[in-house]
Amino acid sequence: MDIPQHSYLSAADALALRYGADAAPTAGPWNEHISLLLSHRSVRGYRPDALPQGTLETLIAAAQSAATSSNLQTWSVIAVTDPDKKAALAKVAANQKHIEQCPLFLVWVADISRNQRLGAAEGVTLEVMPYQETFLVAAIDAALAAQNATVAAESLGLSCVYIGALRNNPQEVARIVGLPSGAFGVFGMCVGFASPAAANEVKPRLPQDVVVHHDVYDATGEQAHRAAYDALMGTFSTRNQMAADTWTRRVIGRMGKIAAMSGRDKMVSALNAMGFELK
Amino acid sequence: MDIPQHSYLSAADALALRYGADAAPTAGPWNEHISLLLSHRSVRGYRPDALPQGTLETLIAAAQSAATSSNLQTWSVIAVTDPDKKAALAKVAANQKHIEQCPLFLVWVADISRNQRLGAAEGVTLEVMPYQETFLVAAIDAALAAQNATVAAESLGLSCVYIGALRNNPQEVARIVGLPSGAFGVFGMCVGFASPAAANEVKPRLPQDVVVHHDVYDATGEQAHRAAYDALMGTFSTRNQMAADTWTRRVIGRMGKIAAMSGRDKMVSALNAMGFELK
Repeated sequence: MDIPQHSYLSAADALALRYGADAAPTAGPWNEHISLLLSHRSVRGYRPDALPQGTLETLIAAAQSAATSSNLQTWSVIAVTDPDKKAALAKVAANQKHIEQCPLFLVWVADISRNQRLGAAEGVTLEVMPYQETFLVAAIDAALAAQNATVAAESLGLSCVYIGALRNNPQEVARIVGLPSGAFGVFGMCVGFASPAAANEVKPRLPQDVVVHHDVYDATGEQAHRAAYDALMGTFSTRNQMAADTWTRRVIGRMGKIAAMSGRDKMVSALNAMGFELK
Repeated sequence: MDIPQHSYLSAADALALRYGADAAPTAGPWNEHISLLLSHRSVRGYRPDALPQGTLETLIAAAQSAATSSNLQTWSVIAVTDPDKKAALAKVAANQKHIEQCPLFLVWVADISRNQRLGAAEGVTLEVMPYQETFLVAAIDAALAAQNATVAAESLGLSCVYIGALRNNPQEVARIVGLPSGAFGVFGMCVGFASPAAANEVKPRLPQDVVVHHDVYDATGEQAHRAAYDALMGTFSTRNQMAADTWTRRVIGRMGKIAAMSGRDKMVSALNAMGFELK
């Protein structure tokens, strides 16, 4: 199969890559922005080349342009370029080598410490701080910002990959990048130019019918769709020299055993120690 | 002040609107994708016009193209067009009238129920289900997907606004759209054509120096930046016929008192009842 690499595929081609030809929806309204979004791939190998001057500022401007709950802006980002710090962060994240390879590693932070400092400076107790809701808002704020940064980076010909494995040891991440209480590294992100060896295909997703519900949640037909998606992912993984794997086996492998959490089963006590009471 | 409305502003103009002329960073690499991201505004008034045929499918294709942790795809979306359901959801969300006005209201769902059904069908216990980490992954998955949908919608000339107030009463939201156990409406989103009366300016954000840290978290200079941002937001709110408000007052208003949480202080017990143990 000849995989088109250009960012601006037609709707029909982009949808066929994302869902497989048999499950692709009929193309609706379309433009090059949407082609860009559909062309996303997570990349796990980078050239050592530095980013063009001013790239970080552009990515952050995109990130800050995302919505933020009540304009509270409860997120921060640590731009890590120091090789020792990247190596230490890679160690937290199960030695993922691309963290050391990439020229820029971003630690996206759910950060209620800044607003806490504001309260302290103004002599006001901010009563909402110890709640689960406040942590959730901060994590979502960080996620919306990070996704905009991803889109901006990919539009510039750069590649990215989210690194959830920073949560394997959030307190060690906090130590490495000096986070204050009330700041939690939600995930990391590699940014850089993809190495030729890391070029990969768009990964297919579940059929739209499984994910979208109309007015009422309805799981009818889910099993048949899952079987078709398992077949699609089996072919995809074989074609990409990965271990042959269905989605069903993937989910069971990741969610079946506590051991697969790599320490994230202890996250609540870590969060509590880091200033998030989660009540 | 003459506010340019075109989506494709120059880097200098877009950055000046987002940060104020005094705090705007020097423009780095740029293109029309980035201009689009910078032009985001949350819109709270909609024309009744229906969306073009196929719009939902395009938005969902964009959403599903976002990264998802380990390809677990632990999110769903309810596309609400039924007027009675929109009215009921508006009632949960402090009667925000734009929820009823917009032609499409999306409920973004952190959804571990689908993977749970997979485990049940395969006769496997998925041990990670009761953990905070699993809820967090699902909420972040939903957020990344929703942000891609927002970018796609705005690229098509549509407008959006996130509705966090669905969390005022997550169990009532679940009842309205029929969510199973293990599915939680993280936030809503209005999608539609902005009414002329709802046209608004790009909202300025905190200076980049406050949000970005280099290798190590560093809050030096934060107070001075906050004072400058307070002045900028005071001018912005006056110019937009909003109650004059600084960022400092906004944060204290939203975070100072439990009453401002509108019921979200009870979210943990709601989540527990909805199938998220959060351990």
